[in-house]
Amino acid sequence: MIKAGVIGGTGYAGQELIWLLHNHSNVSIEFISSHNYAEKEFAEVYNSFYKFMQDVCISILEAERKLEDIDVLFIALPHGKSFDITKKALNKGVKVIDLGADFRINSSEVYKTWYGVEHNATELLEEAVYGLSEVNREYIRKAKLIANPGCYTTASILALYPLLKNKLIDNSSIIIDGKSGVSGAGRELKIGSLFAECNESIKAYGVAAHRHTPEIEQELSKAAGQGITLIFTPHLVPMNRGILCTSYAKLKDNLLEEDVYKIYEDFYGKEQFIRIVKTLPETRNVRGSNLCDIGIKVDKRTNRVIVISAIDNLIKGAAGQAVQNMNLMFGFKESEGIGILPMQI
Amino acid sequence: MIKAGVIGGTGYAGQELIWLLHNHSNVSIEFISSHNYAEKEFAEVYNSFYKFMQDVCISILEAERKLEDIDVLFIALPHGKSFDITKKALNKGVKVIDLGADFRINSSEVYKTWYGVEHNATELLEEAVYGLSEVNREYIRKAKLIANPGCYTTASILALYPLLKNKLIDNSSIIIDGKSGVSGAGRELKIGSLFAECNESIKAYGVAAHRHTPEIEQELSKAAGQGITLIFTPHLVPMNRGILCTSYAKLKDNLLEEDVYKIYEDFYGKEQFIRIVKTLPETRNVRGSNLCDIGIKVDKRTNRVIVISAIDNLIKGAAGQAVQNMNLMFGFKESEGIGILPMQI
Amino acid sequence: MIKAGVIGGTGYAGQELIWLLHNHSNVSIEFISSHNYAEKEFAEVYNSFYKFMQDVCISILEAERKLEDIDVLFIALPHGKSFDITKKALNKGVKVIDLGADFRINSSEVYKTWYGVEHNATELLEEAVYGLSEVNREYIRKAKLIANPGCYTTASILALYPLLKNKLIDNSSIIIDGKSGVSGAGRELKIGSLFAECNESIKAYGVAAHRHTPEIEQELSKAAGQGITLIFTPHLVPMNRGILCTSYAKLKDNLLEEDVYKIYEDFYGKEQFIRIVKTLPETRNVRGSNLCDIGIKVDKRTNRVIVISAIDNLIKGAAGQAVQNMNLMFGFKESEGIGILPMQI
Amino acid sequence: MIKAGVIGGTGYAGQELIWLLHNHSNVSIEFISSHNYAEKEFAEVYNSFYKFMQDVCISILEAERKLEDIDVLFIALPHGKSFDITKKALNKGVKVIDLGADFRINSSEVYKTWYGVEHNATELLEEAVYGLSEVNREYIRKAKLIANPGCYTTASILALYPLLKNKLIDNSSIIIDGKSGVSGAGRELKIGSLFAECNESIKAYGVAAHRHTPEIEQELSKAAGQGITLIFTPHLVPMNRGILCTSYAKLKDNLLEEDVYKIYEDFYGKEQFIRIVKTLPETRNVRGSNLCDIGIKVDKRTNRVIVISAIDNLIKGAAGQAVQNMNLMFGFKESEGIGILPMQI
Repeated sequence: MIKAGVIGGTGYAGQELIWLLHNHSNVSIEFISSHNYAEKEFAEVYNSFYKFMQDVCISILEAERKLEDIDVLFIALPHGKSFDITKKALNKGVKVIDLGADFRINSSEVYKTWYGVEHNATELLEEAVYGLSEVNREYIRKAKLIANPGCYTTASILALYPLLKNKLIDNSSIIIDGKSGVSGAGRELKIGSLFAECNESIKAYGVAAHRHTPEIEQELSKAAGQGITLIFTPHLVPMNRGILCTSYAKLKDNLLEEDVYKIYEDFYGKEQFIRIVKTLPETRNVRGSNLCDIGIKVDKRTNRVIVISAIDNLIKGAAGQAVQNMNLMFGFKESEGIGILPMQI
Repeated sequence: MIKAGVIGGTGYAGQELIWLLHNHSNVSIEFISSHNYAEKEFAEVYNSFYKFMQDVCISILEAERKLEDIDVLFIALPHGKSFDITKKALNKGVKVIDLGADFRINSSEVYKTWYGVEHNATELLEEAVYGLSEVNREYIRKAKLIANPGCYTTASILALYPLLKNKLIDNSSIIIDGKSGVSGAGRELKIGSLFAECNESIKAYGVAAHRHTPEIEQELSKAAGQGITLIFTPHLVPMNRGILCTSYAKLKDNLLEEDVYKIYEDFYGKEQFIRIVKTLPETRNVRGSNLCDIGIKVDKRTNRVIVISAIDNLIKGAAGQAVQNMNLMFGFKESEGIGILPMQI
Repeated sequence: MIKAGVIGGTGYAGQELIWLLHNHSNVSIEFISSHNYAEKEFAEVYNSFYKFMQDVCISILEAERKLEDIDVLFIALPHGKSFDITKKALNKGVKVIDLGADFRINSSEVYKTWYGVEHNATELLEEAVYGLSEVNREYIRKAKLIANPGCYTTASILALYPLLKNKLIDNSSIIIDGKSGVSGAGRELKIGSLFAECNESIKAYGVAAHRHTPEIEQELSKAAGQGITLIFTPHLVPMNRGILCTSYAKLKDNLLEEDVYKIYEDFYGKEQFIRIVKTLPETRNVRGSNLCDIGIKVDKRTNRVIVISAIDNLIKGAAGQAVQNMNLMFGFKESEGIGILPMQI
Repeated sequence: MIKAGVIGGTGYAGQELIWLLHNHSNVSIEFISSHNYAEKEFAEVYNSFYKFMQDVCISILEAERKLEDIDVLFIALPHGKSFDITKKALNKGVKVIDLGADFRINSSEVYKTWYGVEHNATELLEEAVYGLSEVNREYIRKAKLIANPGCYTTASILALYPLLKNKLIDNSSIIIDGKSGVSGAGRELKIGSLFAECNESIKAYGVAAHRHTPEIEQELSKAAGQGITLIFTPHLVPMNRGILCTSYAKLKDNLLEEDVYKIYEDFYGKEQFIRIVKTLPETRNVRGSNLCDIGIKVDKRTNRVIVISAIDNLIKGAAGQAVQNMNLMFGFKESEGIGILPMQI
């Protein structure tokens, strides 16, 4: 039984993490900090937790004083806010899993370019492990600081990794067309997240400028062994949860669909959270679970491969993956607390 | 470990039941029958189950031949279809939990009036126990045949039972205004269930004529110790899951809100699936769980009590309650497999 | 051709009004004021207007300086904000249609009780005409100041007026269960209006305390010729537009459903915006229109009448009714600019 | 004033057409045929039309007997069903606008390949004019038979036409990622169109196999002056209306975003139904209108252009465009009856 603290527990990713940790056999939640709801009962902020949790949210300052009591710290803060608390936690010997973006980008310059703020903990960048379990499992086991991947990036990297690793595609031809539910925008108050502004509509946003782009490129470049530049276009879909990524790339050779399927099945064969599906993925098929469904089509007419991946953005795209990483770091069963069967309806 | 069979496993209630049973520590699913999908893999019908279940659906005829292998039979069929299979199962010593309406109404005449078909197993009516655990727990423990309550009825009866039991209201003044997500209409193909016909709209249906009315009246009459006639009006809401019932009644005495709260808390004090909440219930607060949230307002201006109850129609209103009944019948922990923390978003 | 000014044109009711006025043959929009978007193009705030309107929003101070240029002023502000501008407009001889609540309640004390602020224009209360065209048509024609009805109130009063006018019901038995789309909450930034907080859920709010209650009671009391106290319970439904009110009352006599239908048809016979329908109203049937659909059921078992009314909250419940009032005040055809056929899908 | 007949008036495209024609100043509807609802009042099928229309649907056989009474026939039938009635109408001198797919594909072989049925009116293929007004206006004016474009194809062709016409892109690099509301699937009863199967989920369908692909290729090939093969991937989005197409292509030269904007503005400069927008298109901005919004991004990192187009699938993507074509064919003002300001919320 380990002890966990959660910084920023009242955002959407944070509450999802609490939901998962509450069901986890090997973890107790020692504290939950919240910027907006310090001193308030967590179950008052999210009424669904009523009678399940009595925790009262604390401030981040109070949380800092409790770092000694915990084994692992989860951080779910907006970018630019994790540097300080991460350092303090690591100094106390607490392992850190940052659900935010602050340690995902290896280069502090690239970070500054895309996020517009200075990186204030460059000394930790080398140590930080990119927490995509299916790719970095062994590093994660030994890590002290995990940069938990972004939601779109998880769906994108998992979709394309086998193609790049196996050098099957023209690396300059990648286009990722992403679609996300509105919870991906977080709980921040903005006009664009109001019900009547999202419902009954779809739009693209952050076209050719979204911050998940360099993160996807970085990780896929590692797979390819060479620098990759690609297009990533996110869209906002009127639903709460779910990300679907439709990824396109030009095949180098005339591979058949079954060949590509074979390659994916080999690559992800033993992964329990990746399902290579013969039907086309739908986000509802992974709702509430830590799964990533991947389906493949080869368009012979244009010799392109189309890979479709679906995740629950709040789980595999955030909190579930964080727990998966924790499980690896502490030697628990990798699926402990996250082996959930999806909720179809 | 007991063995269960499911008849009608590919409707919405059926699939939800499979979802719950799959996670249950004391049950193995022996077979799933399906009218429309016999011989098809269950996970092909509901893709979310891919890699979790390999079961192939069978016909009801084949299911009959397997009755000897099981301890409990769940039936999730349209009304009028459960008589025969129920008799056969009981004859083989198999306990039956019918999620349909065929054994809910004590009087075969009332059944015929509201359902429009003859009751073909009147000999079983006395034996059948109405499976509302919070009310009939001790009978359920000993029952061989459970009539699992309807979705609206569960939310309605739980909301009003303490008032009637304690004789606090004018029994002729009850009005229940129900609101349900579209999954309540089942998976049947009808124009009214198409996305573009339900979305962005709300309507009442079955006004003064819905079949859950006599069921609510029957059970509340038992609570009151006298015959009760009431109004129940269902509405269709553009969401997948959830039922909210807003129930109105005239208070006999000038009770304060806190008095009524006290009465509910006393009545439901030890119930782990009933939450008496001080905020107003929302269906999302119980999503994916077996909970019923109940909130109360007393309107001093009109001396009426307004009780608001929220359930997940597919769980507490159907499959979850069925599992709760099974747990009682077989001496398992009542919350086994259904102690789920709701999914807020 | 008359000239209109709009105060608060960038809220949801405001923009709907601009939408209608833009299509009106006898009106030109002279100015649009906006608290949040002064100096911004209106079509930048609501992109759908791009290429249709070039208007730049102005501040309310600037709007005051332009009062002399206009014939009618529409005000769509939060309650408590209309007093001052109304006085200034009336002083300049400008007719005023206030879409807010400030002149709806005849008694300044009742106003203060429910709205929590002092009424600062009590001298205008007598002069203000409650702008429900179907009830007050002749007064509206001559009015200088219109208090445009609330959205729930419109659907409620239209539903119950004939019953009270004809003394058919027990006046103490009225219960109105209202359901509204999220646009009814306006464009204000609050957690409860975020997509992920409203979608896939339904809840009641303001139970036994909603500000539309005294407004409904006031107008129905006039119909009845005696003071009426009733219950009104609003609910939030995951859709953009639409209000459905399900109203319950005890019939004095044993009227048949066809009798009640006859009474409604007589009462509303010539009204072009009221449809007495034989099917059950659905909000989608009136979407985008100024219609109010009314359906009736008599429950013989309890001798209660159930009246169901549906409106588009932004049109008949706000902007459409405002235009209807303007048409009456200026002698235009009553349906000018609002005779829209509803948009079914 | 011309007289119109509608074949297949009770599908979604059909009802939208009735909605538009009802508001058109120069057209009277002579008859509406319906396969499923012959002899039923149209307003009973779509209650929103109650009191606006008294028409009773007729069978197609009866419609054939009335061909002599009309000037124009609109056909909204599933593919493969338009051949016969089209021939009969043309023989009687009636102009035909087919909203279905039967005359869109110039080659009967390509038609057979993608639609799986024999083309039974090949003699009409040469005569049929592809009814994309912005591209074929002059041909449409003189046409007797119009093949009204598909919904996705309209959004796709309008998005890419200027690029191909101006030879700005690598023709082999085109990828169109389309997203549609559920009304695009029509009113047919199928599991996949049920509310609880679409809501809260997104999926791709018809990947590398959708029938709109050859139609888009055919028309863009004409623009390019050479054969084009491309990828088109449709997705189902949980909303009623709207199509968004995100189209990607490789720029031949290093064009700046403003250059591309200039080219589009020049190309579509006088078109009243095309809006070249500087913000990113959202389907709600065109809801209920005949508009196509187009926004452009140039990604300098990959030298690709991303064109985003939004339409209301039922209007510009079907019925609105059909009316636009009729206006051209009969010399009416092109925007007559379809100059609707979009409905933002």
